[in-house]
Amino acid sequence: MFVSASVTCFFAPVIDIPKNSGSIGVGFTIDRGVEVKLAGRTTLNGKRIKLQTLEYLLNKLGYEGGVEIRADLPLGCGFGLSGAIALASALEVNEKHNLNLSLFQIADLAHESEVLNRTGLGDVTTQCHGGFVVRKNASAPSMCRVDRFLWDVEMDFLIIGELKTSEILEGNLKNIYKIGVNCLKMFLKNPSIDNLFKVSKEFTLECGFADDEVIEAIEAVESCGGLASMIMLGKGVFAVNGSILRELKGYYTKSRVVWCGIRKSL
Amino acid sequence: MFVSASVTCFFAPVIDIPKNSGSIGVGFTIDRGVEVKLAGRTTLNGKRIKLQTLEYLLNKLGYEGGVEIRADLPLGCGFGLSGAIALASALEVNEKHNLNLSLFQIADLAHESEVLNRTGLGDVTTQCHGGFVVRKNASAPSMCRVDRFLWDVEMDFLIIGELKTSEILEGNLKNIYKIGVNCLKMFLKNPSIDNLFKVSKEFTLECGFADDEVIEAIEAVESCGGLASMIMLGKGVFAVNGSILRELKGYYTKSRVVWCGIRKSL
Repeated sequence: MFVSASVTCFFAPVIDIPKNSGSIGVGFTIDRGVEVKLAGRTTLNGKRIKLQTLEYLLNKLGYEGGVEIRADLPLGCGFGLSGAIALASALEVNEKHNLNLSLFQIADLAHESEVLNRTGLGDVTTQCHGGFVVRKNASAPSMCRVDRFLWDVEMDFLIIGELKTSEILEGNLKNIYKIGVNCLKMFLKNPSIDNLFKVSKEFTLECGFADDEVIEAIEAVESCGGLASMIMLGKGVFAVNGSILRELKGYYTKSRVVWCGIRKSL
Repeated sequence: MFVSASVTCFFAPVIDIPKNSGSIGVGFTIDRGVEVKLAGRTTLNGKRIKLQTLEYLLNKLGYEGGVEIRADLPLGCGFGLSGAIALASALEVNEKHNLNLSLFQIADLAHESEVLNRTGLGDVTTQCHGGFVVRKNASAPSMCRVDRFLWDVEMDFLIIGELKTSEILEGNLKNIYKIGVNCLKMFLKNPSIDNLFKVSKEFTLECGFADDEVIEAIEAVESCGGLASMIMLGKGVFAVNGSILRELKGYYTKSRVVWCGIRKSL
């Protein structure tokens, strides 16, 4: 099972009981992500790994084995891989063990596990749909009202370092919420790629998430006529027409936006 | 733009104003469908064609040209091609003319056009999601609560002839509605491929849609250990392990269920 990485552009977080936790905002799925199949023990690209979000979920499903994960992006850098691994693993267990759970039953469990372990608030919902996904309320995937924009875009990424989602989610979220809700309103008034970047960058700056290195990367892209903003939540940048990012410090990669977050393994 | 054909297994129709019209039920998307691009005049596989559902929609979008449609399945046989053509065409107009409408804004217009022209009630919703799509209320796509089952299945099809959706939708729908709602309950009690076929066949027989030829085709598949039911609404059959259908009168084809109803052109 393959589940796309998801990148959040801006968000308004809510933490409550799991089904009422989540985030309002916009994220998108790309053609890179995680490939998962069932195995005796859990490995990531061949190495043993312990992931709390995954363990909680597998336990909930009554599955005692592990999963073999292949990922071509790093964990902890804002690509929603924690959610992708959880969702893909639960879909695999569901299929191979004939649980006959629906997609949203599975997604809600993956989301619950993300919320309890503070690894993500909206990635699983974005991954269930695909494309540019607007989450209009903060909740579990099954209860989340979404809309989508099917824009065909290639994105450039610069990964400078990690940010711990859990640390930001432990902080005072009220201010971020207020800024995020306002950003969604501004985006929906004029939903276009240009405005998405404009609003996303404003969100990043107003929340104070971007440090000098990130701001310099964004400005480098803009000075070449491209669009860029900060990956939520990773120390990195996503961009359109951002090939200049290759020349900066960090890991550069590019990926196309895909309209479907879940696909069969190749 | 490519939009999948969608096959309805059973349904409970509601006709009201367009946004409150639709159907409860289950349908699935397959890897065949329609490929659409903008053109001066409207053609289907190279031949001029006039499609009311499409014309109404293009007019609503303020687009005065036509579309070039490629389809590898016949119209009027229960593959939801009317909805697929409408959705794909509107997505193309949206993209090429920078309308920046969301997927559900576009889908609601396509659905409105389907309802007013009595060409379909649930296909557009199914196509917006993908896989086996459960529609839990009868409404426009943006307001429709759905769930999905991502089963990886190859389906056999036998197309015996056409059925006019519009004629059935002109009839007394109350009885069909009652049977359809009951079928959804029975399916959701035990959501599996086996039970989907069981419930779908019961629906077909209770509604009296299947004639002798269709019943014989279903029984031929069952006698070989396969599963089959009638395509809603076409004079034809969908089946799992139904290669025996090759030997019967009609057009035989097979196609895989896909989990995403909309994709970029190849």
